[in-house]
Amino acid sequence: MNTLDGLLEKAAKKKDSVIAVACAAETEVLKSVQLAVRQNLASFILFDDEKELQTIMAADFPELLNTLKVSICHTENKAVSASAAVKAISSGKAHVLMKGNLPTSVILKAVLNREYGLRTGRVLSHVAAFEVAGYERLIFVTDAAMNIAPDLTTKVQIIQNSVSVAHACGVEKPIVAPLAAVETINPAMIPSTDAALLTMMNKRGQITGCIVEGPLALDNAVSPEAAKQKGLTGDAAGNADILLVPNIEAGNILYKSLMYFAHAKVGAVIQGAKAPVVLTSRADSAESKLYSLALALLTSDQ
Amino acid sequence: MNTLDGLLEKAAKKKDSVIAVACAAETEVLKSVQLAVRQNLASFILFDDEKELQTIMAADFPELLNTLKVSICHTENKAVSASAAVKAISSGKAHVLMKGNLPTSVILKAVLNREYGLRTGRVLSHVAAFEVAGYERLIFVTDAAMNIAPDLTTKVQIIQNSVSVAHACGVEKPIVAPLAAVETINPAMIPSTDAALLTMMNKRGQITGCIVEGPLALDNAVSPEAAKQKGLTGDAAGNADILLVPNIEAGNILYKSLMYFAHAKVGAVIQGAKAPVVLTSRADSAESKLYSLALALLTSDQ
Repeated sequence: MNTLDGLLEKAAKKKDSVIAVACAAETEVLKSVQLAVRQNLASFILFDDEKELQTIMAADFPELLNTLKVSICHTENKAVSASAAVKAISSGKAHVLMKGNLPTSVILKAVLNREYGLRTGRVLSHVAAFEVAGYERLIFVTDAAMNIAPDLTTKVQIIQNSVSVAHACGVEKPIVAPLAAVETINPAMIPSTDAALLTMMNKRGQITGCIVEGPLALDNAVSPEAAKQKGLTGDAAGNADILLVPNIEAGNILYKSLMYFAHAKVGAVIQGAKAPVVLTSRADSAESKLYSLALALLTSDQ
Repeated sequence: MNTLDGLLEKAAKKKDSVIAVACAAETEVLKSVQLAVRQNLASFILFDDEKELQTIMAADFPELLNTLKVSICHTENKAVSASAAVKAISSGKAHVLMKGNLPTSVILKAVLNREYGLRTGRVLSHVAAFEVAGYERLIFVTDAAMNIAPDLTTKVQIIQNSVSVAHACGVEKPIVAPLAAVETINPAMIPSTDAALLTMMNKRGQITGCIVEGPLALDNAVSPEAAKQKGLTGDAAGNADILLVPNIEAGNILYKSLMYFAHAKVGAVIQGAKAPVVLTSRADSAESKLYSLALALLTSDQ
């Protein structure tokens, strides 16, 4: 059984990983750094105002001042902090970028900087790994946060990004279900035609490392019984590892439904840059932030 | 606490209700008829081939042959069965239309027939009522099944249809959350701008009988803590009764996520015609079909 705690253990076994944190001088951010250090997950370079960082750490996180696992790099403002953290990645000093107390737009601007940024030419996309009660496997959802209304070409890259995450989590040949409201092809519903095209692109070798099977409604993607009842044959329907949502609204709703209605556990990462980026928000639990770091460490290739 | 079993009790108290079932000669359909009769929910007129109906009933549902609650009306084929069931509604003999063993398109064609159909000029839309563990109220989701990509004007009607269902279920002033991926207005995201417009239309009296509050992401709609954390003030955010989804994919995914990941109970009805229509499918549980009938009976105005 593949679990998020399993990923955490696996990530901890990867030696010498370094995480660069932009704008780290904030309690919630330092809480997750402390948790990660306690779990021996990685070393950290914290970018922010040095005095501010030391004041908070002295008051609330003294153990972070006394460990070789944490180093501090003084930066004067949020933009500088973001670019310095990104440069730590480009120069090979760190392997995962983590957003601290700064707007997402500021850190992404640094990530996309043409000189020192982490561009690869690929699309950046969000991949979330959910542990849902009653499911033996992790369920990956993409893209619930970055791409608003991806076209077919973008969806191909979103799939490839998520497949690389699934591989890093030990899922050798993930089943990808491009979701629609139906399992038939309806020209009035772009998600259904895109799903069919993605399935054929996979059959023609244009999408690799996975099995794509769609269009599928969510029930036919995750329940073998529902798939059977709809007359869908083969092993893919009902056994999806990766759920490709058609747009950011569907993704965001699925993500939050899993969190608030199904009480699932989650970790998430931005994939497609030279290094994985963790964009946790204040609302995320400490546990969830830790899972995100584990996911990022597993997909980094130091 | 508002529950689906509570709706069932309330619906049973409504006397002399009649349900017209198009193409009733099928085991799964008759199972729900039998359940409803046992619960004293309503009387039924079953439309289908008389001999076939009597054969199945004699073999598996003898009690349906021996009750005054069930009458049979012979029809020669599916299209005739659909139109006869619809005519039973138009003529006032029945109050709720139920789909039996025929394609949805065939029954909807009869519903929309210009001569004897059930048109009102309003949009037909799907309203589902969910009972979710941990929530004291019913959570209504609309429209997860009828309108593919509704525009602003259609969304207004979808809201009004769902509000009438909420009223019938005893929710006096439902809070409607038009969902988006964000709670800010982003011109690049139509669901967010539509949500803001719907909120203002409600303030200007163009949407009535409810409080509309959006755009909201799902977490800010159903969790007061999440809403507070985002700095959303007032009582509406976090306490939504009705979740308006931006498109059929988001709706279908939310519906199925509630069913398969959160194990919620559900009943659903098509609203906007002269009488409520129940379009259950084979995959629905008997319990769910019963809840749908209860929901329909409560919204019918015999």
